[in-house]
Amino acid sequence: MGYSFLNDYSEGCVPEILDILGRTNHAQEVGYGEDALCVEAAGLIRGETGCLKADVHFVSGATQANKIIISSALRPFEAVVAANTGHIAVHEAGAIEATGHKVCTVPTADGKLIPELVDQVVKTHIDEHMVKPRMVYISNTTEVGTVYVKKELTVLKEYCGANNLYLFVDGARLAQALTSKANDIAMKEFAAIPDVFYIGGTKNGALLGEAIVINNENIKNDFRFNLKQNGALLAKGRILGAQFIGLFTDNIFYRNGAHANSMAMKLADGIEEAGFGFMAEPESNQIFPILPNRVIESLLKDYRFYRWADNGDGSSSIRLVTSWATKEDKVDRFIADLKSANRCA
Amino acid sequence: MGYSFLNDYSEGCVPEILDILGRTNHAQEVGYGEDALCVEAAGLIRGETGCLKADVHFVSGATQANKIIISSALRPFEAVVAANTGHIAVHEAGAIEATGHKVCTVPTADGKLIPELVDQVVKTHIDEHMVKPRMVYISNTTEVGTVYVKKELTVLKEYCGANNLYLFVDGARLAQALTSKANDIAMKEFAAIPDVFYIGGTKNGALLGEAIVINNENIKNDFRFNLKQNGALLAKGRILGAQFIGLFTDNIFYRNGAHANSMAMKLADGIEEAGFGFMAEPESNQIFPILPNRVIESLLKDYRFYRWADNGDGSSSIRLVTSWATKEDKVDRFIADLKSANRCA
Amino acid sequence: MGYSFLNDYSEGCVPEILDILGRTNHAQEVGYGEDALCVEAAGLIRGETGCLKADVHFVSGATQANKIIISSALRPFEAVVAANTGHIAVHEAGAIEATGHKVCTVPTADGKLIPELVDQVVKTHIDEHMVKPRMVYISNTTEVGTVYVKKELTVLKEYCGANNLYLFVDGARLAQALTSKANDIAMKEFAAIPDVFYIGGTKNGALLGEAIVINNENIKNDFRFNLKQNGALLAKGRILGAQFIGLFTDNIFYRNGAHANSMAMKLADGIEEAGFGFMAEPESNQIFPILPNRVIESLLKDYRFYRWADNGDGSSSIRLVTSWATKEDKVDRFIADLKSANRCA
Amino acid sequence: MGYSFLNDYSEGCVPEILDILGRTNHAQEVGYGEDALCVEAAGLIRGETGCLKADVHFVSGATQANKIIISSALRPFEAVVAANTGHIAVHEAGAIEATGHKVCTVPTADGKLIPELVDQVVKTHIDEHMVKPRMVYISNTTEVGTVYVKKELTVLKEYCGANNLYLFVDGARLAQALTSKANDIAMKEFAAIPDVFYIGGTKNGALLGEAIVINNENIKNDFRFNLKQNGALLAKGRILGAQFIGLFTDNIFYRNGAHANSMAMKLADGIEEAGFGFMAEPESNQIFPILPNRVIESLLKDYRFYRWADNGDGSSSIRLVTSWATKEDKVDRFIADLKSANRCA
Repeated sequence: MGYSFLNDYSEGCVPEILDILGRTNHAQEVGYGEDALCVEAAGLIRGETGCLKADVHFVSGATQANKIIISSALRPFEAVVAANTGHIAVHEAGAIEATGHKVCTVPTADGKLIPELVDQVVKTHIDEHMVKPRMVYISNTTEVGTVYVKKELTVLKEYCGANNLYLFVDGARLAQALTSKANDIAMKEFAAIPDVFYIGGTKNGALLGEAIVINNENIKNDFRFNLKQNGALLAKGRILGAQFIGLFTDNIFYRNGAHANSMAMKLADGIEEAGFGFMAEPESNQIFPILPNRVIESLLKDYRFYRWADNGDGSSSIRLVTSWATKEDKVDRFIADLKSANRCA
Repeated sequence: MGYSFLNDYSEGCVPEILDILGRTNHAQEVGYGEDALCVEAAGLIRGETGCLKADVHFVSGATQANKIIISSALRPFEAVVAANTGHIAVHEAGAIEATGHKVCTVPTADGKLIPELVDQVVKTHIDEHMVKPRMVYISNTTEVGTVYVKKELTVLKEYCGANNLYLFVDGARLAQALTSKANDIAMKEFAAIPDVFYIGGTKNGALLGEAIVINNENIKNDFRFNLKQNGALLAKGRILGAQFIGLFTDNIFYRNGAHANSMAMKLADGIEEAGFGFMAEPESNQIFPILPNRVIESLLKDYRFYRWADNGDGSSSIRLVTSWATKEDKVDRFIADLKSANRCA
Repeated sequence: MGYSFLNDYSEGCVPEILDILGRTNHAQEVGYGEDALCVEAAGLIRGETGCLKADVHFVSGATQANKIIISSALRPFEAVVAANTGHIAVHEAGAIEATGHKVCTVPTADGKLIPELVDQVVKTHIDEHMVKPRMVYISNTTEVGTVYVKKELTVLKEYCGANNLYLFVDGARLAQALTSKANDIAMKEFAAIPDVFYIGGTKNGALLGEAIVINNENIKNDFRFNLKQNGALLAKGRILGAQFIGLFTDNIFYRNGAHANSMAMKLADGIEEAGFGFMAEPESNQIFPILPNRVIESLLKDYRFYRWADNGDGSSSIRLVTSWATKEDKVDRFIADLKSANRCA
Repeated sequence: MGYSFLNDYSEGCVPEILDILGRTNHAQEVGYGEDALCVEAAGLIRGETGCLKADVHFVSGATQANKIIISSALRPFEAVVAANTGHIAVHEAGAIEATGHKVCTVPTADGKLIPELVDQVVKTHIDEHMVKPRMVYISNTTEVGTVYVKKELTVLKEYCGANNLYLFVDGARLAQALTSKANDIAMKEFAAIPDVFYIGGTKNGALLGEAIVINNENIKNDFRFNLKQNGALLAKGRILGAQFIGLFTDNIFYRNGAHANSMAMKLADGIEEAGFGFMAEPESNQIFPILPNRVIESLLKDYRFYRWADNGDGSSSIRLVTSWATKEDKVDRFIADLKSANRCA
């Protein structure tokens, strides 16, 4: 099988995390996330984010985080607003609806929500015959690899505040967002904005794990009951703590994100140099070049990646994803092979 | 803090599992449980259980397994029958009800369901004004440490077959059951009986993970959709595969169970020798001695364990749990300290 | 088919309600319970109950009322406590669990909850591994025909207040309770006690309908969204308003309840006179005499009623239910037939 | 308040229904829809639809019908496909999602689904990371007043059959569809097509009630459990039976639909004559004329109707709804007032 640009979770984890697991393996710890490793990791995250009063909880994956956060915060008839590309709207097998809540979607060009788009939903949901929008869900980076800048986040938060909406940021790829060339906001500035967000481990060099950070007091209350009811309290919660101690020591979290982005930018530059464009502006570790189908066929012999959309004109958009583990020589080789395939095709 | 007999998930994992994680860390694998490690682990489990046609899925924890299995198999108005001590009835924060299903409970003396007890529920649920019992849930070992013998399992399965009920076995401590002195059934014989069961990793030396084994064709269908919707498909499913490759290599699964049981039996023998009885017959790695409260107070200075029930006569039942990691010298020391506390008290 | 003592909803409705439906039939009204009839009915109910600040909503049936009230008031992991005989625990096909909530039951001798019984649940639900009791559900009259006296209600409310529990009274047979010989509380005194309750129409001479009265501000909020989401907002809500205008004009509500009770007492007196006892003290329109099976067989030729429980000694408890529509001559005839059957049997 | 063209449920019911309620009021009937009136009504419906083997159930309203049918038929991860104007997608306060199911919507010009539109959803839902489309929901008449012709229904059913999708028709306004000038299909031909549909009573001259007709054996099974669990089994189910005996005697069902349509066509003709167009082709009892805002303001002094959409050019679309009870002189007067307002404006 060819080298994989399928996603950013193809490899295991940074060696530091395995070290921590090994080093702490024999210590007796209490269960369910109240162990010394989770306590330490939560402290590191409070320090790093500046959210000193936040509640921090660890769960094993992003769908679980989304499902629990949304269903904890909303009453039965309340709904969450998302971009039509939003992970919760498309790729979670109806996990949010399974908790009883509607996801109201709006079409976006670039995967980002802006107040005007959310307002279309708010303005048309006017009485008890319709659901009541109560939360806005955004992903940073978005599902199409774009990144929110500071101003976009602050105006959205302002809008939410004025309209009784929680702002929830899915940060499965927050490291990639904060280390993107398009980014203009520091972690601490970012972290102060949402009512609740999470910091992705799985897609940034951990074996598993997302760290939920809750700023809003309403959402904090009894949150562990929701974790338990959703099967998210791991008996050996210590392994989730270990992941985030690893990531937030020696800036590995940011270094991983930066490496993933830099590999993607190198790919993007090469692709552009070869004369091709993109479905969306390359800003982070997911890029969407548009290539002739014959070039794609040729590349698929040696590489793995998703075809995203057939453009119907002999070309398709593909998705290339890089990660903390992507090897630079593979990137170089991909560019060379692309150019060669283009010449032959 | 004292040495912990609180549970069987206080330590990390057997070193073999860390070795596998390290050895396979850099290989690129596909996501969501379709990687080479999960494939290998599923093969090992099919071989070990003799369930060659079974579907095998890996999830991170027991509440998650229970919730997904039950809600996948039942229609909205169907219910599951459990002992009133059953984990799903007591200790999952309403996880089953959160999927819309009632848990019908019956009181038991020893944590075990027998046809007569289930039949009380079946006989009194007669029309559409009541839920429709459709599944029987048992745990082996039970929540009070008892073990089902072969005959008990076969008559229960027969009853289920005759009454259109699925039989589901929660095997969070299946290793401890199959290596108990009270056990009289081999893995392959056991595994052929239930419609669906799972093999516990978390409480038997893995970092996390339960392996769901589905024999019944009705339950197999589209099961991965349920996993995804419940947030149970880990992006790096490989780490779950690694746990079970570890456990099912060199019989570690059984050796861990046997060690846990033997440490518990040693504790039980010492306690009995010291003149004390038990709330339930000690058969596996959870035992429930009845001790004078003053002895308990004294032991709590150096050991950690749960007080289970105050008997109101100056004595209480406590729960002592041993595991794959329990150290024999700590057990010896506990017995000695108990005898000494008893003399002084 | 014989004369029916099966239940209190065998006949249609008091003629006054049909009159109102006829009289108002051609008026144009707005939909979904905001019509003039519902407004008038709500006003009558606020006046009659003295709950001048209460929100009043009308739904079509009791299961619907229970389901909506409970799921509106509770967060996902919160539970409701009920007697094991409670309608929500037994006879609603899992309607409460279908909204995600556990019903914690306690055994009772007489169908009534007292603080000590509720406290058993509260005391054993101590952390996030278990559901969190947050509401107490009682029925007045109970499912076995007994009636709460004032002191029982006030101590229960006090307990609830002290333990952060809502008190919810299912008043499907509230008229029968308030007109029972065992009752010692007036409607206004009663109505001030619960956080939320409903006044049954269906089982007291209306075609359909229960009137929900919400005293607690927390439960009032956005309640109509819950009604809609549960399919309980009738387009022609006017027909529900009509029922309660009918019942709360000229004291029909109380007269119906009193008639049902008096017919039941007449039955009970005759049965006692014939030498038979009861499973529960006859206090309202549901009574449970214990009769020889041969007498029962004989009576079933001319009457319809439920066998409640076979006592295994040649006798069974049966349930006889009277209503606003029960005819006195049928009651007299039943007693005579019973005596005659007893002589022959 | 002005004369209402707000909806088709402003008045009570046809007098024949009140007659039946009066005539049968004192008969003792069994509860929960198994009474003689429901049996008779179900027989009338089987005869009228030609669905001799269908199961027929009565519920009180359309949201309840939609919710129960969809949640009965689907497994947790399965989804229903609807037009973005579909009642279940917009106007049921998330009732479908509250049962755990996603509604996948597609934009339509005229409120109708065609195979090509459904296929967009089917083709993009390809694995277990997404919900699995399993049912197609259409309304006839649609929410914008349009009507499906025979060919449209048969090709949609063919598509559904080929793609393992149930076809479900919301017939809240089925009478209006089958008596529309645009209709080309008879009741019996129509009724043979869907897997399940319902016949609306509430919006066609009944006090309440929708009659669910189930053709597909898979959906029939244990349906009454779903009714009970959703609070839809009325104790006095007889009142639902009475509605449909009334409607299906002497063709009242069709006469009501035809009257509503003819009043709407008269309105449409007058509006067209006055020089105005429509947002959608007037085909049934809901029409959407586009009028100058000043004309609308003037009409709102004497009539009630909804503004549907502001066109931003000084004109708006409004919705006018007629019914079985609409008076022809009010229609004439409306046209006259419209013309007059237009001259003055």
